[in-house]
Order: sequence, then C-alpha cells, then structure tokens
Amino acid sequence: MSENFDAVDIIRAKRDRHELSGEQIAWTIDAYTRGVIADEQMAALAMAILLNGMDRREISDWTAAMIASGERMDFSALSRPTADKHSTGGVGDKITLPLAPLVAACGVAVPQLSGRGLGHTGGTLDKLEAIPGWQADLSNQDMLTQLEAIGAVICAAGAGLAPADKRLYALRDVTGTVEAIPLIASSIMSKKIAEGTGALVLDVKVGSGAFMKDAAQAGELARTMVGLGTDAGVRTVALLTDMSTPLGLTAGNALEVRESVEVLAGGGPADVVELTVALAREMLVAAGVDDVDPADALADGRAMDVWRAMISAQGGDPEAALPVAQETQQITAGADGVLTRLDALQVGVAAWRLGAGRARKEDLVQAGAGVELHAKPGDTVTAGQPLLTLHTDTPERFSRAHEALDGAWEISTAGAHVPTPLIMDRVSAD
Amino acid sequence: MSENFDAVDIIRAKRDRHELSGEQIAWTIDAYTRGVIADEQMAALAMAILLNGMDRREISDWTAAMIASGERMDFSALSRPTADKHSTGGVGDKITLPLAPLVAACGVAVPQLSGRGLGHTGGTLDKLEAIPGWQADLSNQDMLTQLEAIGAVICAAGAGLAPADKRLYALRDVTGTVEAIPLIASSIMSKKIAEGTGALVLDVKVGSGAFMKDAAQAGELARTMVGLGTDAGVRTVALLTDMSTPLGLTAGNALEVRESVEVLAGGGPADVVELTVALAREMLVAAGVDDVDPADALADGRAMDVWRAMISAQGGDPEAALPVAQETQQITAGADGVLTRLDALQVGVAAWRLGAGRARKEDLVQAGAGVELHAKPGDTVTAGQPLLTLHTDTPERFSRAHEALDGAWEISTAGAHVPTPLIMDRVSAD
Repeated sequence: MSENFDAVDIIRAKRDRHELSGEQIAWTIDAYTRGVIADEQMAALAMAILLNGMDRREISDWTAAMIASGERMDFSALSRPTADKHSTGGVGDKITLPLAPLVAACGVAVPQLSGRGLGHTGGTLDKLEAIPGWQADLSNQDMLTQLEAIGAVICAAGAGLAPADKRLYALRDVTGTVEAIPLIASSIMSKKIAEGTGALVLDVKVGSGAFMKDAAQAGELARTMVGLGTDAGVRTVALLTDMSTPLGLTAGNALEVRESVEVLAGGGPADVVELTVALAREMLVAAGVDDVDPADALADGRAMDVWRAMISAQGGDPEAALPVAQETQQITAGADGVLTRLDALQVGVAAWRLGAGRARKEDLVQAGAGVELHAKPGDTVTAGQPLLTLHTDTPERFSRAHEALDGAWEISTAGAHVPTPLIMDRVSAD
Repeated sequence: MSENFDAVDIIRAKRDRHELSGEQIAWTIDAYTRGVIADEQMAALAMAILLNGMDRREISDWTAAMIASGERMDFSALSRPTADKHSTGGVGDKITLPLAPLVAACGVAVPQLSGRGLGHTGGTLDKLEAIPGWQADLSNQDMLTQLEAIGAVICAAGAGLAPADKRLYALRDVTGTVEAIPLIASSIMSKKIAEGTGALVLDVKVGSGAFMKDAAQAGELARTMVGLGTDAGVRTVALLTDMSTPLGLTAGNALEVRESVEVLAGGGPADVVELTVALAREMLVAAGVDDVDPADALADGRAMDVWRAMISAQGGDPEAALPVAQETQQITAGADGVLTRLDALQVGVAAWRLGAGRARKEDLVQAGAGVELHAKPGDTVTAGQPLLTLHTDTPERFSRAHEALDGAWEISTAGAHVPTPLIMDRVSAD
C-alpha cells in the first residue's frame, strides 16, 4: 500500500467537500487498521463525512476497503443458494429466530452472522442464549457443515470479518458520529458482503424505536445499502418497516424466544407472522427460488423441524423450559378506550433497564427480563385490565422502568385509530 | 464543576447546529484539561465547530474557559500602562523586534510573550536566540522587574497560561481543524487576555504567506478577535496587512535581527519601518498615550537604547557579531524588467528548507540560514543581477530550496506594477 498519503490532507479534503479517491480511501482504512491514522484523526474525518457526505462511488470504495481489512467467507461449495437478512434494529424484533429456519425449510441456506444488543435494541445472540446449552460461537468449518446439513445457522460473527469496522464503530459510538448514513451503510454492508451471502434482504426500521426516526432518512439508508450490495454482486432488496410500536407482544430475551416458537408452531402475533413471511418471500426470490410459499412451511411444521435441528446442532435443548424472571409487576389501563399509541423506544428502554439489554458491551443480560404487552395499538382496552407486565430478577429496577414508560401510551375514548402499515416501502436495485 | 454533562451530547449538539451554553462550554474545556473528554471526542467537536461555527457569545465563553484553565498575569502594579501586539504570522515578519523597544521608548510597557516558529513562518524567539547569550525564559518576577526598569520584555510564554489551548492546538494540528476561525480567535485571545495586557494591537496578515489567504476571512478573524478583547476589557484594535510578498529584505533568524537593528538605527527597508511605526502608533493610542510620535523615537536613537538594554537584561550581547551561514548561493534575474511578484509563501518555504524553520516542534533551527532579497515587487531589475541570496550551513538543502522557489517571481517587460498597500484595513471596536 502506497504511503504517499497524509491523514491531515485527507481530512482536509473531506472537510472542504472534495471527493476522496479510491486510493485515498483504501489507504485511510488500511492506515487506521495499522494504527498509522490515530483515533483523533479518524474522529475528525468521521465528523467531516457525517456533515459533508460521501457519494455512491466513495461509499462503495469505503465498503470495499473495510472488507479488504479482513477475511472473506465463501459458501459457493454449498449444494443450495444462500440468502441472509439484516435488520437495522428495533424493539421486540425477534424476526431472525423464526425466519432463518423458515427460509431453510424452503430450500435456501441462511448463514446468519449476528451480534449482541447495545442500548434499547436487543441482540439476536442474547435472545438465543436464553435457551439452555445454546452456543453462539462456531468455527467457519462447523458453520459450513451445519449449513449443508440443516440449512440454517445463527452464530456470532468472528473477529476476522471487516475488523476495521469494529474499531471504527467503537470510535463513532463515543464521538457523536454514529448517525452518518455513509458510515452506517458501509458498516452493515462490509460485514454482509464479506460473509459471502448470495442474496440479502434488509429490514430497515423506521420510527421511535429505530435508529432512523423518519422515512426519508430510512429510505436514503436503504437505497445506499441496496446500491452497495448490488455493486458487490449480492442480490439485495430492502423493506422499510414500521418501528413506532414494538414488534409482537414481547421485548426481552427468553420472552422473545417463546414468542418465536409460537410463530414456528403456526400461532404468534399477526405482525410477527406477517413480517417473517414477507421477508422469507423476499429472501427466496432473491436467491432464485420463486415456486415455494413460506406460509405453507410455517403452517405444516417444516420450519419448526429446522428450528429444532438448528438449536440442537449448537448445543441447545429446544424442549427445555426457558428462564423466567424472578419478579413481575403489572401495569393496568387507566381508562376505557382504544389504545392509539404504545411507544417502541420507551418500551425498549424499559426492557433494557429491567435487565434485558446492556449499557456497555461487557455487561451481562438477564435471560428472563423484559416487557410483555397485553394490548397493541388498535386494541380496545378496559380500565383496570393489564396493559404491560414487567419482568426482572432485580426488583430495584422496576422504578426506573416505570420512569421510562411515563407517557408511553395513549388510550383514546373519542377518535378512531388509524393503523400504520407494517411494511411501508420496498427498495430494490431496479 | 458539574458533571451533569456528557461529551457525546455536546458533540451532537454542535453537529446538529445547536448553540452550546456557557455551562456546556466551561465543562467541555475543563473536562478536556482533566482528560475526561478524550482526544477523539475533542477532534470530532473541533470538526463540528469548524463546519458549523460558533456565535460571538459561544466564542467568548470558549475563550473565558480556556483562560480559566490556567493562571492570569497582572501588570497593574507597573508605573506605566501596558500594550502588546500579536501577529498571525508571516514571512520576514520581524516587526516585534524593533516595535517592542520603540513603544517602550515612548512610555508604554510592552510585555511580549512570544513563541517559536513552525512551518514556513518564523518565530520571534528563534530570531532573538540568534543573538549570542540571549535567553527566552524568564520567571514572572524577572519579567515584571524588567518591564518596570526597561519597559520592554520579549520572552517565552510560560506553560501556565491557558494550558487547555496548548493541548487543543496540538490536537487541531493533526486533525485538519486548525482553520476554524472561532478556534483560532479563542486560541490567540485566551493567551493575550490571560497575559494581562491593558491594550492589544493585532496584525492580521493576508496573502499567500499568511494563514488567511483572503481579506474576507482575515476580516472575519480580526472582527472576532477585536470583539473578544473588547468583551474582556482589553482595548483591542486590528490592522489587516499584506503578506503576499515577504516583509523587508530578509527571512531567517540572524538575517532578520540584523535588519531589525538597521530599522532601530534609523535605516532599514521602507515597509518594515512603515509597519513598525503604524503598529507603535496604534499601541500608544490604545494605551492612552497620544502625544508622542514614535517616528521621532526611532530617529533619535531612544528606541535603540531600549533595545540594547532589553537584550542585555536577558543575557544577550547587543554588540556581538551575529551568526553567519557557512554557505550561500545567489539567484540572478533572468531578464530585464520590473519585478511584479515575489511570493511570500515560496520564500518562506525556501527559508524553512534552508534550516531557518522547523517541521516539528522538537527540531533545531540554524541561526544563520534564510533568504535575502535584493529586489522587491516594483523594483526595476537587470538580467544577471542578484535577485535572492540563499544562506545555509548544510549545502545539501539548496536544491529543495530552489524547488520551493520555482515560479516564485515574475519580471514584466510590459505593463506597470500596481503596488498593493501594506496596510489594507483597520478594525476597531467602535
């Protein structure tokens, strides 16, 4: 790699709204990985990128440089096509749990590398770790073997994929530069492209509980990511989905596993079923399989069979009782009427404070903690009926969860509730 | 100091173009000094300030917080008023050397805390250190004693004045955030206000050899600094002066001392004399002395007497021969005509490369190195006559100095030369 670049020149160029060349970007990521560019220099560059932007070519080069900082996986030896899903994160978003076995049951392999949660959004690995015995860490060879045999794997991303992203993400987190669309898009897509999936469906969440609070921003992020995937030869589609209210009726680790198993058993909340099936259809089509209806595989138990095999293969006992929190508290409705709003962010923060999430990455989570909903927007409620149940092992946490929930819902005696569509938009390369 | 602030919230506020409160700014500077705010966080904030700006109240609070990070000096016990001058830096800018004794000779004390040079602009202390025996470091008590006895002192700023600025400046230097007018203005003014001068004249340079390349930017910087000084009770005036061509006929340490002594002896280049007298008049008026003409004190040798006393008081021998470089090379005019341009930046870089300046603050400078000019824009030259003489102790440096000078001047056989006025504008609080 040429050393004919200087970090300050590159920062100044972006500061002054110039385009960075592919060579400058490749050098920047490599030099940052090697420690030649210091954290304070990357922080200044990240702020300049946040405020001045990058164009599609720059973001594509930035993503390629992040991929080049680590290893790439290769699933081309598998006997079936691959498809993966990524969600930008929300409250009660357990969709990966029923989705991966469902898509596998329809003939497409799902290599799902997941992470742990931070802040008010839960992490897929935290949820699965509520299952007694289940292990998140697999070797690349074990992952391939399980994919071939069972068709689905959900495991921890190794440190080898896009290591530059790991360092950059930690830096952005403390420097107010998380919210830069070019950096969000390249962070997500570098890991997904390095992972080697053939097709990718993005679930870009919009609303209070999501990272993107409005549809315009979410649409820009979706288009940027679909462009990056397409440029890298991955068939990529994005759905924009509502995250103004929690998905399903649970937010919390074991609580969400329980709800996912209900969906795999053919039941479960309507919104979780709707989104699971819609994402499965997109993944199947993107992987070239358009003659299978995933709703059938959910109804006839094939998805549940794959789930059981997938959990067992990673040491988990799919029949074991799930952990339950030691203490619960109920919150009841204060009036008769229609529930018109139940805020996703506030429910997410309450679940986090009850012990379901972590503030720092070294914190432990409680498997049983979280929030259970007894009504969703649009439901008619009666004064005194249970609205929410709070679960925790540490009852001193209840009071801060109650604070988080202050003003989180509205019960209307007058006007009708106008439901928001769950799937708001679809972005594809065409 | 309240700990109810969070660095990321403050970075985000400025990133999103919000105004920072006085409490937020005071906490930020204090927390940075104590290491609670990390360098990468301050780098992101500095970039946000550079791109989104600060208003006058914010800059004033930022400056006050920098002053509060260290000690303040107090010259109120002196029997005469005080005035100081600050130049934003240029090529051949030796004005402080004749100016400080000249103003002292007119009855106003000059407590000039100076720095060393970095890059293509020379430092006042580097120049004076070319005088055998002269010492830059004085205790606060020695400084006061010398000011009372002689009326002028030029010495190194102690580490105690605005220590937050020192750390912040080093950070800005490596993060592409030097060029933020709020940060430049508060950096300069925090040290000058903490120094305790009663009046201050700013020489804001404009042109290729200056930090500010155009008059609009320089005017904004001048107005910002005059506002800060005025708000802090320091009578402050700024002159905008031309730095498209070097000041005087020398750029280099001993070379500039020699030229300064010529000015004190009643001779010297016209531009150096003009600017020295103009700045002296501003300093005298700002200090409340309006019945003395500094041109007289220059002509009758009183300024030279103060110079000799000032140099001797700091261990220097004003009669000693100045160091001379071991090697010289002459550059001659290639044609007959009028010299219409001689670029300040290119001459400054050549002098730096010859050994007069430093690239890093731990580098040593050569006392004898530099560039001597034999003609200035507007002068008629003849093919073959000397145009420049390069001086260095290390002749292997000549070739890179020649490179720096490529295209640095123009000799016109046709059109007339239109001289730029040396003093371009004046900014005061009224």
